Amino acid sequence: MKKKVKVNAAILIIGNEILSGRTKDTNTSTLAIWLNSIGVNVVEVRVIPDVEKTIVDSLNLLRSTHDYVFTSGGIGPTHDDITAQSVSKAFGIKYEIHEEAFKILEKYYQPGEFNEGRQKMVWMPEKASLIINPTSGAPGFSVENVFCLPGVPSILKSMLGGLTNVIVGGEPIKSLTISLRTVESEIANSLTKVQNENKDVEIGSYPFFHAGKLGVSIVIRSEDQLKIEKCNTQILKFVNEKKIEVVDR
Amino acid sequence: MKKKVKVNAAILIIGNEILSGRTKDTNTSTLAIWLNSIGVNVVEVRVIPDVEKTIVDSLNLLRSTHDYVFTSGGIGPTHDDITAQSVSKAFGIKYEIHEEAFKILEKYYQPGEFNEGRQKMVWMPEKASLIINPTSGAPGFSVENVFCLPGVPSILKSMLGGLTNVIVGGEPIKSLTISLRTVESEIANSLTKVQNENKDVEIGSYPFFHAGKLGVSIVIRSEDQLKIEKCNTQILKFVNEKKIEVVDR
Repeated sequence: MKKKVKVNAAILIIGNEILSGRTKDTNTSTLAIWLNSIGVNVVEVRVIPDVEKTIVDSLNLLRSTHDYVFTSGGIGPTHDDITAQSVSKAFGIKYEIHEEAFKILEKYYQPGEFNEGRQKMVWMPEKASLIINPTSGAPGFSVENVFCLPGVPSILKSMLGGLTNVIVGGEPIKSLTISLRTVESEIANSLTKVQNENKDVEIGSYPFFHAGKLGVSIVIRSEDQLKIEKCNTQILKFVNEKKIEVVDR
Repeated sequence: MKKKVKVNAAILIIGNEILSGRTKDTNTSTLAIWLNSIGVNVVEVRVIPDVEKTIVDSLNLLRSTHDYVFTSGGIGPTHDDITAQSVSKAFGIKYEIHEEAFKILEKYYQPGEFNEGRQKMVWMPEKASLIINPTSGAPGFSVENVFCLPGVPSILKSMLGGLTNVIVGGEPIKSLTISLRTVESEIANSLTKVQNENKDVEIGSYPFFHAGKLGVSIVIRSEDQLKIEKCNTQILKFVNEKKIEVVDR
């Protein structure tokens, strides 16, 4: 793939346990930080239930509107793990035993332990590329621009290293955070001016409450370090004039 | 509103800080647990950036396909807080000063402190209903079936109590968790049978790693306690037969 300046991705979190509130999703943050570091901007996240039609429809929409789609969840051995069959349907390709995955798991388990439940995990879309799992054996897989990872956060995290040379990002997105001992309303107007003068830079303002004190973190994001520096200078100028304290956060 | 048996909701998390991975979303879990408790099932979550067109389009889709939509984020005083103006556009109604909200904040702040930045927070869609904020003054608001809450988790949480009698839920969704000292592949086939015999009950299987040991939590969810009990009995039967230990989790 020719290197693009801007590369984007959508994340599809598949799992009733997130929608019920039972489990807090941390995979979005893990994926987003890693993707940013290799020049891929996450522009949309969806959390959907373990329902085949919903997965198929969401996948087909997101894979046609984004450079990459990353899914999390639904690739284990139980009945509610239906990501692989759904990806097969979305692409209109066979759902079958993946020979390479079968060999990996046959070798991974002790003799006699590679039972029927575990064998479900080698059923994948036809000709899927494997994503190696250094933690618990069962690989993830990709088809075209769709990359399917497990839901367990520590396992997902351990599999990203193997993808760093597979995903072709654009210019890495750099960011700078300025934390201030103030409240948002004190800086809102001045910050709006900086944003208006630097329309292609993303400037966010986030109140925080830390160690008993209120503050605001301003986050400047851009592919261009010089543009970040320019905004930083403009922000520190009004911060100085207003005698607002800059703090560590 | 006449009480329906099944009531659903979508959550729209608005904020670049979630998409960049800087902030982990916990509002989904807070909202979902509360909504479940009053009989509302969260069936979809989307995380989108602070981009007006994206917010307007997402709102118009979600509000027409779900009983309720809850938004989180983008109602503060800074330039990146554009939820209120986006909701106005989505409904095609005026974006104007809300008299009641103005009075609340005028009273909340010390004389002279209700500055221009803070006054931005009283601009709302025409005739919006207010959602009282017991933590930091600035109210949220609702228009028809769309409820707009702030992004700061502690403030959002503090505002839900005021909505409990506003939201009309269906039958509360009950759930039962059985935690086992086993791995998913050992129970996958037996659990599939229970699911197949109880198709209208949601049965999820979630591996965990706790205090150095692997386990699996089976979560049974339904509006009908008797159906939960029936699944519980069937699951404990095969757990017993397989001599799998039930553990606290």
